[in-house]
Amino acid sequence: VATRFEAELRAQPEALARLIDRRLDTAAEIAAVFRRDDVDFILIAARGSSDNAALYAQYVLGRAHRIPVALATPSLYTIYGQPPRLDGALVVGISQSGSSPDVVAVLEEAARQGRPTVALTNASTSNLAQVVDAVLPLEAGDEHAVAATKTFANSVGAIALLFCAVTGDPVPLRELRQMPERVEAQINLSLETVDVPALNDVAAVTVIGRGVNYATACETALKIRELSGLFVEAYSAADLLHGPVAALEPGSAVIGIAPTGPAQAPVVQTLDELRRRGARIVSIGEVASVPAETVLPLVPGVPEWLSPLTAVVPAQVTALRTAERRGRDIDNPRGLQKVTLTR
Amino acid sequence: VATRFEAELRAQPEALARLIDRRLDTAAEIAAVFRRDDVDFILIAARGSSDNAALYAQYVLGRAHRIPVALATPSLYTIYGQPPRLDGALVVGISQSGSSPDVVAVLEEAARQGRPTVALTNASTSNLAQVVDAVLPLEAGDEHAVAATKTFANSVGAIALLFCAVTGDPVPLRELRQMPERVEAQINLSLETVDVPALNDVAAVTVIGRGVNYATACETALKIRELSGLFVEAYSAADLLHGPVAALEPGSAVIGIAPTGPAQAPVVQTLDELRRRGARIVSIGEVASVPAETVLPLVPGVPEWLSPLTAVVPAQVTALRTAERRGRDIDNPRGLQKVTLTR
Repeated sequence: VATRFEAELRAQPEALARLIDRRLDTAAEIAAVFRRDDVDFILIAARGSSDNAALYAQYVLGRAHRIPVALATPSLYTIYGQPPRLDGALVVGISQSGSSPDVVAVLEEAARQGRPTVALTNASTSNLAQVVDAVLPLEAGDEHAVAATKTFANSVGAIALLFCAVTGDPVPLRELRQMPERVEAQINLSLETVDVPALNDVAAVTVIGRGVNYATACETALKIRELSGLFVEAYSAADLLHGPVAALEPGSAVIGIAPTGPAQAPVVQTLDELRRRGARIVSIGEVASVPAETVLPLVPGVPEWLSPLTAVVPAQVTALRTAERRGRDIDNPRGLQKVTLTR
Repeated sequence: VATRFEAELRAQPEALARLIDRRLDTAAEIAAVFRRDDVDFILIAARGSSDNAALYAQYVLGRAHRIPVALATPSLYTIYGQPPRLDGALVVGISQSGSSPDVVAVLEEAARQGRPTVALTNASTSNLAQVVDAVLPLEAGDEHAVAATKTFANSVGAIALLFCAVTGDPVPLRELRQMPERVEAQINLSLETVDVPALNDVAAVTVIGRGVNYATACETALKIRELSGLFVEAYSAADLLHGPVAALEPGSAVIGIAPTGPAQAPVVQTLDELRRRGARIVSIGEVASVPAETVLPLVPGVPEWLSPLTAVVPAQVTALRTAERRGRDIDNPRGLQKVTLTR
């Protein structure tokens, strides 16, 4: 293993297993807050890969206890100094470093207003961890590569753990406990099979997903973009059709995140439409039933709600391979730092 | 005027004046709902240009009455059939046609749960208008070009009108009443001055904004993309730095939305950084104080909270000019319809 990125990518199963082993009780304590009578919605503050994990939370926690999940607009707290009233909110910060001032500012304001606050962070002594009522440590271990792998997987895993705790249903927990092994199998499969000729010589790549895998689409775009420097964007398969599709022409490269589940059909429908328009389709899915020039296979049997944990792996490997081919510095992509501080 | 798009672009001041003249009372009635004790947050469902107007609402309505504004995740209602509980929510649909099934589905569910519902639509007899408690008609008149201009302006105008009604403060209303004249002056200025050589021969364009003009950045990207077929993307000036900036290299084209106001400094800071990295900067702003190769000037004296109404005009003209230069069909961009139906 030549790069920290690849080493950390390979360490995801171990990191995920550690999280589940150590933090089930912590998740159960935090889940009690979700059920408080005065909590009508969850507000999440996050940036970068953590913001992609927040998109996963919108769908998964939206279905647990049927609670709406909103994303914060940090500039109201920082630039405008006019934070909203947070009556009814449970406020969650997701940040591997726990140090971006805008994320901390949202949580500080929530604490000031007496609202319940939770941090999902890999840095238990960070500013973020210190301003909240409860911390769910990500347990990802040290992450040195600038582009996140383990911390993204464990942010998704932490949200999945909260889902299990909030529902109190043993079935999802059993499914989650099987994921370290599935992710391991997926890593082996992807490292053997993933080769993405469609991404050679393209100016731009469009990634689409929907539902829980809209988060995967966003993380796929971010990861390939960070490592390879290609222009990669993500859209909901529905939003793309409301205008942005105008930029796709014959030969455009499109990656569809299409694991088995309720969101597969609408993604495949959009991929079919794009294929008719001449786009080169790469699909990430269990079976070859999706119309695609290239299929990046997924291991079978993963429930859709947990599929971002496996579906992101071929995306990470694609990012690695594309960056290698382009001669990029994998561990230190141009112009990025591990910790980005924004207000 | 050779195209419907340009005719409609020029008709924005008239459309905005009509909205303000006719719908102040309607806005006042709807504002009463915002103040209900059982309303803790606003949930908005929208797609395309209307979704960009929803981003404006996140900042402007977030500051009126300090109420948090969240964007809906339609697939929970449609694909998964597991809509969240909407306790505490006022649910708003924004859609010029009022007919996209996913937007209608969110409002139908809100009505089923007994929550207050409002539609901002240009089609007062649409499905959307029929399922809600109250309609704020956009009064934009007929819009024939596929790419929205008047209906975007009037969606922003309708949200501004709601802001005036919710705050009950005469100052913002006075400011809003001056906007048709300012938009008229902006259209004349932009049609005379806007020429964007930096967008020739680029593969992709990145638009950045923040705060109220994050919405303008998203609409700028969508409009240039729809009309010209170029690959155009929008980012918050903060989010860009958390990874996506890796794709920007010397010669990349960046458009910064930087009108005077609290959000100008963070946008200029990011533009400065990108310029140091060799990007070609186009800025939309009142003055030449922003470091840029090309400045698309804005008329002076517009309060920041209303600046998207003028700042979007040079973007619309840029879209028109870029599409003309590329020989595109302005009124019927490739692969788009006026009304897009998604679930």
